[in-house]
Amino acid sequence: MNSSDDLSSTPSALLSAYSGTRPERLPVWFMRQAGRSLPEYWKVREGTEMLESCLRPELSAEITCQPVRRHGVDAAIFFSDIVIPLRLAGVDVDIVRGVGPVIGSPVRTAADVDRLTALPGGDMTAIREGVGLAVRELNGRSEPVPLIGFGGAPFTLAAYLVEGRPSRDHLAARAMMHADPAAWARLMTWAADRTAEFLLAQIDAGARAVQLFDSWAGSLSVTDYSERVAPYSARVLSAVEGLVPRVHFGTGTSEILTLMRDTGAEVVGVDHRIGLDEAVRRLGPSTVVQGNIDPALLAAPWDVLQRHVEDVINRGRSAAAHVLNLGHGVPPETDPGVLTRIVELAHAR
Amino acid sequence: MNSSDDLSSTPSALLSAYSGTRPERLPVWFMRQAGRSLPEYWKVREGTEMLESCLRPELSAEITCQPVRRHGVDAAIFFSDIVIPLRLAGVDVDIVRGVGPVIGSPVRTAADVDRLTALPGGDMTAIREGVGLAVRELNGRSEPVPLIGFGGAPFTLAAYLVEGRPSRDHLAARAMMHADPAAWARLMTWAADRTAEFLLAQIDAGARAVQLFDSWAGSLSVTDYSERVAPYSARVLSAVEGLVPRVHFGTGTSEILTLMRDTGAEVVGVDHRIGLDEAVRRLGPSTVVQGNIDPALLAAPWDVLQRHVEDVINRGRSAAAHVLNLGHGVPPETDPGVLTRIVELAHAR
Repeated sequence: MNSSDDLSSTPSALLSAYSGTRPERLPVWFMRQAGRSLPEYWKVREGTEMLESCLRPELSAEITCQPVRRHGVDAAIFFSDIVIPLRLAGVDVDIVRGVGPVIGSPVRTAADVDRLTALPGGDMTAIREGVGLAVRELNGRSEPVPLIGFGGAPFTLAAYLVEGRPSRDHLAARAMMHADPAAWARLMTWAADRTAEFLLAQIDAGARAVQLFDSWAGSLSVTDYSERVAPYSARVLSAVEGLVPRVHFGTGTSEILTLMRDTGAEVVGVDHRIGLDEAVRRLGPSTVVQGNIDPALLAAPWDVLQRHVEDVINRGRSAAAHVLNLGHGVPPETDPGVLTRIVELAHAR
Repeated sequence: MNSSDDLSSTPSALLSAYSGTRPERLPVWFMRQAGRSLPEYWKVREGTEMLESCLRPELSAEITCQPVRRHGVDAAIFFSDIVIPLRLAGVDVDIVRGVGPVIGSPVRTAADVDRLTALPGGDMTAIREGVGLAVRELNGRSEPVPLIGFGGAPFTLAAYLVEGRPSRDHLAARAMMHADPAAWARLMTWAADRTAEFLLAQIDAGARAVQLFDSWAGSLSVTDYSERVAPYSARVLSAVEGLVPRVHFGTGTSEILTLMRDTGAEVVGVDHRIGLDEAVRRLGPSTVVQGNIDPALLAAPWDVLQRHVEDVINRGRSAAAHVLNLGHGVPPETDPGVLTRIVELAHAR
C-alpha cells in the first residue's frame, strides 16, 4: 500500500508509456530537471550542503516539485544523489562543487572491500519522508503527476568508490574487476543491495517508477559489461520486479543497449549519440525508449533546437512507446525557459 | 627527399602492416609510450614545462627515442602535443598538470573565431629539427625503427579552443556547430590547416607514417560527426595523401569507425570497447586495424594481462594486417616493465 493508490484509476501519460501503451500526449521530463538549473533551487538550498539537502525531507520534497510547477513536466524525479545510500551506510563521501562525489578513503584492496561491505545499509527514513511529502503535493495537483525514484547502478557506484572521485576512464575500478574478481563481486553485490534498498524505500513512499543510472557503463567493453557488471544491475532490478516500471539509463551505451534491457528493464534510456530509430532497431519494437535530445542543443537558437526536438520525436515513433527526455542531465547553465518551451512543444503535438 | 630514404629498401614490420601486408613479426607500439610513464622522461624534463619540452629539438628527440631503447617497440611516435601547432600560431595555451590543455581566451563567439582564424600558421622549425634528430638516431639502430608523426583532429582541437579546457561532454563546442555553422566551419578549417602543417613538417623531417588523434570524437552523434566534423578531418588527411600511411584514432568511436576510415585513413585505431574482430566486421577485411589492449588491464597481474593480450592478437587475425597497441594512451602510473613484457610477448609469437 502506498499513498499514490488513488492514482491507479487514471494512469498518467508517463505510466502508460512506461507500461508499453502509447498515450495520447507525448510524456516529457528531463534528467536533472530538479536542481542546479533553477534559481528557485539555489534560493531554497542556500547555506545547505548538497548531500545534506537530500536528507532534509521538506527540502528534498520542495526541490523535487519545483520543476513540475515551473515546466509542467509529466513526471517528478526525486531530488537526491546516487551516493546517498553510501552516505547513509556510513561511507565518508561528499559532493565537492566543480568536482563531483569525493570518497574519503577510496576502496583499492580486498581488505578495503571487506571493511566497506561489512557496513550494513543505512536508515532510509529521510528518503521515505522526502518522497512522501513530494508525492502528497504531486497527487494534490489538478492533474496528478507521478514521481520517479532513482538510484545508481553498482558499476557507477563502484567506480566512485574505487577511484575516489570522478575520472575519465575508471581505470582503477576496471582493473580491480580483472585483478581481483572475488573482491569485485563482493563490492558490486554490496553496492547493488544499497541501491536496491534506496529504490525500495522510494517505492514504499509512493514512487510509481524507478530509473537506474549507470552513468559510466559506456566506459566498459561489451564483454566486461556483460560478464562483470550486468549481473549486479540485474540484482538491483530484480529486487523491485513487479512493483513499478524500471528504466535503465547510461551514456555512451549504444553497444550495450540490449544487454542493459536484459538486466530487467521495461524502458531503456538512450543518450544523444545514436538516433532513437536506430536504438529501436537494436532493441526491437516492443521496448519502450526514453530520450534523447542532445543537451548541447539546449544552448542553440530555438529554431535549431525545435528542429532537433521534432526529429527526436519522429525517430521515436518506431518504438512501442516513447518518453521524451534529454540524452543526459540538464547542464547547469541551461536557461530553464528553454525546458518549458520543449514541454509545450511536446504537449502541443 | 627526406632523411629516411635509406630505409625504403627494408620495410619495417610496422610499415608493412600499415600498407596492408601482414608482416612476419606482429608490430607493436603504445600510444603515449614517450613521456609520463618513464622515469628517464621525468629526469630529462626536470625543470622544463611540458610544451616547452616539445619545442626544444634535442629534448623532444631524446624523449621520442627513450621508449624505443627501453621497450624495443616497432615504432617511435614523435613526442609532442596536439596543441603545439596552436601555440606556434600564437594561441595562449598551456598544459596544466592534472588538468590538461588550458586556453587563455576560449573561443566562444563568431568574433572570437575571426580573431583566431586571422592567425597564420607558426614556424615549424623546432618540430622539423626534433623529428630530424630522432630519425637520425632511429635510423642508426642495428634494426632501424620508423617514426610516426601525429596531430590532433580538428574537432578535438576545436573542443579545447571552445571549452577552454578538457570537459566531459564538450557541450559548448557541440552547441557552436549547431548555433553558428558558419563560424564553426571557419574554426574547423583553420584547425585542420594547422594540424596539416604540423603533419607535413614531421613528414618532411622523416616521419614514415602519421596518426590523427580525434580523442573526443566519441562524444558526437553519428550525424554530427558525419556532417560537421568528418569533412575537416578529411581535409587534414588529404593534405598528406600519398606521402605516408595515415592512421585515424579516437575513443568511444565504435559507431563511427567506417566514417573515420572514409576520411582517408589506411589504418583505423580501435579503443578497448569492442573486440577487434567486431571492428574488422564493421570495417571490412581490407582495412588495417591498430589496437586495442585495455589500458586498465596494465594494472592487472601478468597472467590476466597476458590472456587479454593474446585475445586481442587472436581477434586481430581477421584484419588485412594488425598493429598491436593499447586502446588509449599509457596511463601515467603504468609500470614500464609491463610494456616491455607485452613487446616480448608480441614478438615471440
